[in-house]
Amino acid sequence: MMKNKLLLDLFLQSSQTFISGEEISRRLNISRTAVWKQINQLRDMGYEFEAVSRKGYRMTFIPDFYKVTDIEAKLNTKVLGRKIQIMETTTSTQVDAMTQAESGTEEGALFIAEQQSSGRGRLGRKWFSPAGKGIWMSLVLRPELPIRYMPQLTLLTGVAVCKAIRSVTGAEAAIKWPNDILIHGKKVCGILLESATEDNKVKYCIAGIGIDVNLSAEDYPEELTEIATSLKLETGHTIDRALLIAEILNEMELLYNRYTSEGFTPIQVEWEEHSVSIGQAVRTETLTETIQGVAKRLDPSGGLVIAAPSGEERVVYSGEVEII
Amino acid sequence: MMKNKLLLDLFLQSSQTFISGEEISRRLNISRTAVWKQINQLRDMGYEFEAVSRKGYRMTFIPDFYKVTDIEAKLNTKVLGRKIQIMETTTSTQVDAMTQAESGTEEGALFIAEQQSSGRGRLGRKWFSPAGKGIWMSLVLRPELPIRYMPQLTLLTGVAVCKAIRSVTGAEAAIKWPNDILIHGKKVCGILLESATEDNKVKYCIAGIGIDVNLSAEDYPEELTEIATSLKLETGHTIDRALLIAEILNEMELLYNRYTSEGFTPIQVEWEEHSVSIGQAVRTETLTETIQGVAKRLDPSGGLVIAAPSGEERVVYSGEVEII
Repeated sequence: MMKNKLLLDLFLQSSQTFISGEEISRRLNISRTAVWKQINQLRDMGYEFEAVSRKGYRMTFIPDFYKVTDIEAKLNTKVLGRKIQIMETTTSTQVDAMTQAESGTEEGALFIAEQQSSGRGRLGRKWFSPAGKGIWMSLVLRPELPIRYMPQLTLLTGVAVCKAIRSVTGAEAAIKWPNDILIHGKKVCGILLESATEDNKVKYCIAGIGIDVNLSAEDYPEELTEIATSLKLETGHTIDRALLIAEILNEMELLYNRYTSEGFTPIQVEWEEHSVSIGQAVRTETLTETIQGVAKRLDPSGGLVIAAPSGEERVVYSGEVEII
Repeated sequence: MMKNKLLLDLFLQSSQTFISGEEISRRLNISRTAVWKQINQLRDMGYEFEAVSRKGYRMTFIPDFYKVTDIEAKLNTKVLGRKIQIMETTTSTQVDAMTQAESGTEEGALFIAEQQSSGRGRLGRKWFSPAGKGIWMSLVLRPELPIRYMPQLTLLTGVAVCKAIRSVTGAEAAIKWPNDILIHGKKVCGILLESATEDNKVKYCIAGIGIDVNLSAEDYPEELTEIATSLKLETGHTIDRALLIAEILNEMELLYNRYTSEGFTPIQVEWEEHSVSIGQAVRTETLTETIQGVAKRLDPSGGLVIAAPSGEERVVYSGEVEII
């Protein structure tokens, strides 16, 4: 931040007017190459610039860097998010949360990064997580649950995130089994629940949530443009990330309390209501076969029930289920 | 090892005769205090000495330090123990195995330590693991199992260890639910299965096995003497640790292959045959109540079925079940 502070101030003072590279070079007494380097550093932090030849540079987007107080101001929870750690950059918030959970940090502790250098997705995949425009966070849970109930917690998290996105942005978010969030068929959010267990008990569970919030079309690498989208692209508005985080935690704590007192049935009902999978023709590959049919409902343990054309019902518990 | 090498050689050469402190001091040209310090260092490594006033010191036990080749010579496995790492001392083999599993080490990798400074037991407890006389080891497994089957793997491990102890030592080892191994009512072995899961899948599982093999009565701290024992104390013989390790892996791979092809039923039958819990009056505390009754059998998911005096049956899935 130190090196490009003067440049940043210059752009912040000149609101959205163009400043030529030559003028910047002269006013800050640095070379044209240094100007270009510093603008790219600011881009890496989430700032956006328009560059027009003979006019120069204009700042077009200022990221809303997280402040703990912004999130706390909107939280209604007793447990979730009552300890928040914000990092400018990290390898993976999932790894940070696991390390802290291993050394005993309390339930509800939340780890947020502006940027991840090696974000984790499901099934060992990477998660694209550029600076200042997404929500990349991991929440520590310590559920008193036998491990066979863990898949239900995965689905509960999906419902909470889907409801929060709908209420904050108005977008038509829906859940693809088990817990991707889609808008108009493109993925806007991924959820990854990782747990550490001992014998039959959950020691801790880390709910990783990655949401493409304010990414613009140019932020996406080629291979993601067809399958991924952001809340900003879908709604046309810049979204308040702190508000969305608070709302996710609020929804999640409500659902979690309901789950504890009433069991999985109300969660199952809400999941099915918010799902894009139910009623669709789907296909999935297991180690030994391909299962194809219509997704009918969740089974009580959280698996997806698929009815083959013959009417035979099969339950899928993990992996990827493609809508065809 | 370097500093006390000369002292060790002196004792090894004089077989089991006494050597006075004065003579050692003179022959090694070190002070009497240094002699005493070095003997204690050797004790910490697992050597044992008898000290008699006016006669001096006599070496009474030489630990059989592990060699990978000794274990491999007795292994019949295809997967388990095909990569072995032996450490003189470590914090916890469980932590070593988890770290390596996290960075992708293969199924069957085995981590053995002569000594652990902070061995892990079940339910967050410490595990007493002094040098040279016990088996303190952790095995990496990568089962293709939905997480609800993990408790079955815990029970399978208990059966493998119990059978191996019986066949190598002839001792009447038996399993206390879920997987302590007892001889004559005292604990000789603890087993701890810790897993890392993602959604509904097991990423890896670490089977931690701690066996008190050649510990003598003096090795035990006061608070353990009533509840713990060693194979040597129970059989009167020094046990070959390398052979016992190989036999555990051999039994475990056989059982695991059987489990994969035939399911849990044969494991359940063997567990019940080797159990000390079944048929006994037992008591356990849950978060909300005390369950007391007679342990009847395993249920298909690996829980212990307890019949109350009223005849009502309850299933316990985790925690401590005391035999009363």
